[in-house]
Amino acid sequence: MRWLRFTTVNRTAYGILEDKQITEVTGDPFNGYQKTARIHALASVKIEVPVMPRTFYCAGLNYVSHVAVMAAHGVGKANIPTQPDIAYRGPSALIAHNETIVIPRDATERVQYEGELVVVIGKKVKSLSEADALSCVLGCTMGNDVSERTWQISDRTHWRAKNSDTFNPMGPWIETDVKLDAMETIVRLNGTEKTRVKTNDMLFGIARFISTMSRYMTRHPTDVIWMGTDGVPRNLKDGDVVEAEITGIGTLSNPIAKAV
Amino acid sequence: MRWLRFTTVNRTAYGILEDKQITEVTGDPFNGYQKTARIHALASVKIEVPVMPRTFYCAGLNYVSHVAVMAAHGVGKANIPTQPDIAYRGPSALIAHNETIVIPRDATERVQYEGELVVVIGKKVKSLSEADALSCVLGCTMGNDVSERTWQISDRTHWRAKNSDTFNPMGPWIETDVKLDAMETIVRLNGTEKTRVKTNDMLFGIARFISTMSRYMTRHPTDVIWMGTDGVPRNLKDGDVVEAEITGIGTLSNPIAKAV
Repeated sequence: MRWLRFTTVNRTAYGILEDKQITEVTGDPFNGYQKTARIHALASVKIEVPVMPRTFYCAGLNYVSHVAVMAAHGVGKANIPTQPDIAYRGPSALIAHNETIVIPRDATERVQYEGELVVVIGKKVKSLSEADALSCVLGCTMGNDVSERTWQISDRTHWRAKNSDTFNPMGPWIETDVKLDAMETIVRLNGTEKTRVKTNDMLFGIARFISTMSRYMTRHPTDVIWMGTDGVPRNLKDGDVVEAEITGIGTLSNPIAKAV
Repeated sequence: MRWLRFTTVNRTAYGILEDKQITEVTGDPFNGYQKTARIHALASVKIEVPVMPRTFYCAGLNYVSHVAVMAAHGVGKANIPTQPDIAYRGPSALIAHNETIVIPRDATERVQYEGELVVVIGKKVKSLSEADALSCVLGCTMGNDVSERTWQISDRTHWRAKNSDTFNPMGPWIETDVKLDAMETIVRLNGTEKTRVKTNDMLFGIARFISTMSRYMTRHPTDVIWMGTDGVPRNLKDGDVVEAEITGIGTLSNPIAKAV
């Protein structure tokens, strides 16, 4: 099932997407819903960020080859994490599918995409075993963790490097039926494929992260966990279009503009 | 003016606190409110976390002597930050005044308080000058950034060291009329004063942080910024009571229990 959050003329609502048609619901996938008789063509609505998260978690370094690539470019060290230590973000940089990533005026040319899987939590839980961990997951969507590498190196935290307004595209929808081991993450820049990796080739998998976190921290509906990126990211510049696809979910596409 | 969020028998609401009496309002201080005729005695209500933040920011190392003290105890390095780089948290560990801080079963004895000033944002703004930065502030409250020091050293992030459930007491209310330069931050453990410092003796002040952040990131109503701690924190143990006071705001008090 695909959950889409969308805006029509006078309201924002959740809907269930099938064959490019949206069945609008009342309520939401987290607290309960009822289907309505209102049907919309996908092409006729504005797609919104699929969930405004209560807590925005990010796994960070979670693909071995990406850690090495970043270290080779002077971003961090080539130390492979030994345990799944989660990190935090805020929702202020989230934008939807098709919305514009705006590069700040004083950013360098090293603004890069990072296509990644996003896990959406659907239930309030604590202390889950690894075997039970996925029971709290509503589904998955995609994120593009846009990163300004010079700030990532110069600053003590990732505040502007990874959280400048518009730097966190997320969407286009939440897919509840995911087959992790079959998935590939693909990134295209202006239509040309730049990255193709196995999505589940993670250092620490979804179940391991959720189980570990849940020993100390209650998971809440609408929490999201960005699972990290793989591959060699490229620079984005004014006029580009970046697409992150995960097979079985969909494609998150965003144009790039440099602030003037 | 003091904004209190509280629960009576059948609802949670905001109210204005004067002389231990609460005038209940409809709405909230962020989106507009109207006073009602309902008056409650402060002692008759349950005090709630004064705001559930959209984004939970923390300044981290923002008092010079605290950086040195932590480094001397093996927590971080004695490097004084050269610019105001903000960090992030999630709201899952927030608890209210008088609620219990629960020390996880596998924590060491090095679970410590950190009393600090919390700034509450009241308006949506971007690109504020330092001179105008405080115009977006609704008021201030207090936080106790409870920290497990062995995890703070061993882990790549502060996830369980500073975000285990109940590790972020915040409250008891939001004071809108703050005289920063006159304020002292005081921490008492079981009634005995352990820390007394000037609240505004920060490396980077509130206006500097907000102005710098707002160059890249839109500030939103309900965002909170925890401004960092000073002094030498002490260990907390089962049965203790920790009080953080900031003169001119009030006292945030929490009992401690070890999970069994």
